[in-house]
Amino acid sequence: MNIKDYLEQKRVEVDRFLDEVTPPAAMPPATLHDSMRYSLLGGGKRIRPILTIASAEALGTNPPGLMAAACSLELIHTYSLIHDDLPAMDNDDFRRGKPTNHKVYGEAMAILAGDALLTMAFDLISRPDLMKGCDPVRQARIIQELAFGSGNMGMVGGQVLDIQAEHQDIDLLTLQNIHKQKTGMLIRAAVRMGAIAGGANDRQLDDLTGYAEDIGLAFQIADDVLNVTGTREELGKNPNTDAERGKKTYPTFYGVEGAKQLADACVSRAIDRLSSFGSTADPLREIARYITSRRS
Amino acid sequence: MNIKDYLEQKRVEVDRFLDEVTPPAAMPPATLHDSMRYSLLGGGKRIRPILTIASAEALGTNPPGLMAAACSLELIHTYSLIHDDLPAMDNDDFRRGKPTNHKVYGEAMAILAGDALLTMAFDLISRPDLMKGCDPVRQARIIQELAFGSGNMGMVGGQVLDIQAEHQDIDLLTLQNIHKQKTGMLIRAAVRMGAIAGGANDRQLDDLTGYAEDIGLAFQIADDVLNVTGTREELGKNPNTDAERGKKTYPTFYGVEGAKQLADACVSRAIDRLSSFGSTADPLREIARYITSRRS
Repeated sequence: MNIKDYLEQKRVEVDRFLDEVTPPAAMPPATLHDSMRYSLLGGGKRIRPILTIASAEALGTNPPGLMAAACSLELIHTYSLIHDDLPAMDNDDFRRGKPTNHKVYGEAMAILAGDALLTMAFDLISRPDLMKGCDPVRQARIIQELAFGSGNMGMVGGQVLDIQAEHQDIDLLTLQNIHKQKTGMLIRAAVRMGAIAGGANDRQLDDLTGYAEDIGLAFQIADDVLNVTGTREELGKNPNTDAERGKKTYPTFYGVEGAKQLADACVSRAIDRLSSFGSTADPLREIARYITSRRS
Repeated sequence: MNIKDYLEQKRVEVDRFLDEVTPPAAMPPATLHDSMRYSLLGGGKRIRPILTIASAEALGTNPPGLMAAACSLELIHTYSLIHDDLPAMDNDDFRRGKPTNHKVYGEAMAILAGDALLTMAFDLISRPDLMKGCDPVRQARIIQELAFGSGNMGMVGGQVLDIQAEHQDIDLLTLQNIHKQKTGMLIRAAVRMGAIAGGANDRQLDDLTGYAEDIGLAFQIADDVLNVTGTREELGKNPNTDAERGKKTYPTFYGVEGAKQLADACVSRAIDRLSSFGSTADPLREIARYITSRRS
């Protein structure tokens, strides 16, 4: 399989779905919807939704409601970027090569657009039209995965740890814990949501969860490396922002080459976790490999 | 029945439940949990959760998961207060007689505590332990009600309209639309969630929805009146803040007495909506009367 074609095809499907379910920019309150669309539909690799889809596909399934479940993750991811960029947080002016949400719409609207996107994630996976045919017991489990992965014990908790660690002399264990929560838990939720939608048994869910935890770590290490080695064009924002902020990252502890090797080891381990799956899990395997080879 | 005793008893039950399900302030990330608890457990009438409980009681039921569903509304309400108080929004320093969340924990933590409380609302109503025994089809409907009532077409959308209306020469229809979304939709969700949990038929759900819409309006008018007539001690914040901000309210259009009469008319209509219910709906009837008689 060609992973680039696969990712591109799925990205287009995800983008189309997101465009369809997000209120038009002209619908009142228009500024809110315009602001939501600006950040949500402004590009992005859509890696979390694609992981959900690929996870269900690994089980040979395309269950009802899968696309809504997958796209709910992108809504969560997008809201977190908007809030993280706020002046009170990271105070970033650019994201994906464009001015950040609050630079365009102001701080109040950026806070509210984030709140609305967060809420919309749960709207999506509870809408009867979009989730039609989804087993309601599975649906409740899917919603629980999303809430747990994105909340105080997941992504939001990780963001708190991350802010508190800035300019602190943190050790490697602390760094790992930050990333495990901040990026790892949502990636874990993405894979598990696809697995649950697809009817995974306990063993399969365990294997896929292990896969998700390994690629989550690889993903973060690769991000840290890119922050050092990437160009402004590739990243859509200034490189080396971590070092400028005095932020400790994987390259701080291992050097760039050491961090790259660590990411590769995580990818290998992730692929090993899928040994009981046949070729239906090839997209998941290729996504794992893609993580460390990407340039943005 | 004595409504004050009823409200007090339910308030204690809600407070106990919220205390139990919210992570202890010592659990990492401790600052986040401390900040969440500060705003969530810092008092409040708990009117939304009580409406959910009273709505299920009106149907003669106390269904599994009712308390979790009820309390999810208080999590949403609390997050909205934290975000509304931020400097970029209403820039309020006091709430319920205490410094606002961002005055104590800083802006970044206040934003994140709000995000975490919002997410926790959906965690609560999807947690298998708390929702055990709840019919999963009803559960999905309950989650949908919460998401719809609190999102871009509900509470968040209303907050956007409210911000945009400040210092604008808005008409009465616009004012009504703002409040219908900003406070009305969450109260509507509260009543409907209890009704759905309790297995309301279509007719009962319609009646209870009408009741909710009427008391939602009465509640907002009474709030506007209190903002003019209340004292700092009663309100826990400075009175007359609306007028100082150049904000148009019901007293602006009708005068204080006219606004009071309008609120009373809404309450009467709300009680009429419950004509097909017996004495099990007495708490709902008394809550409606209480709305216009409260002093804070």
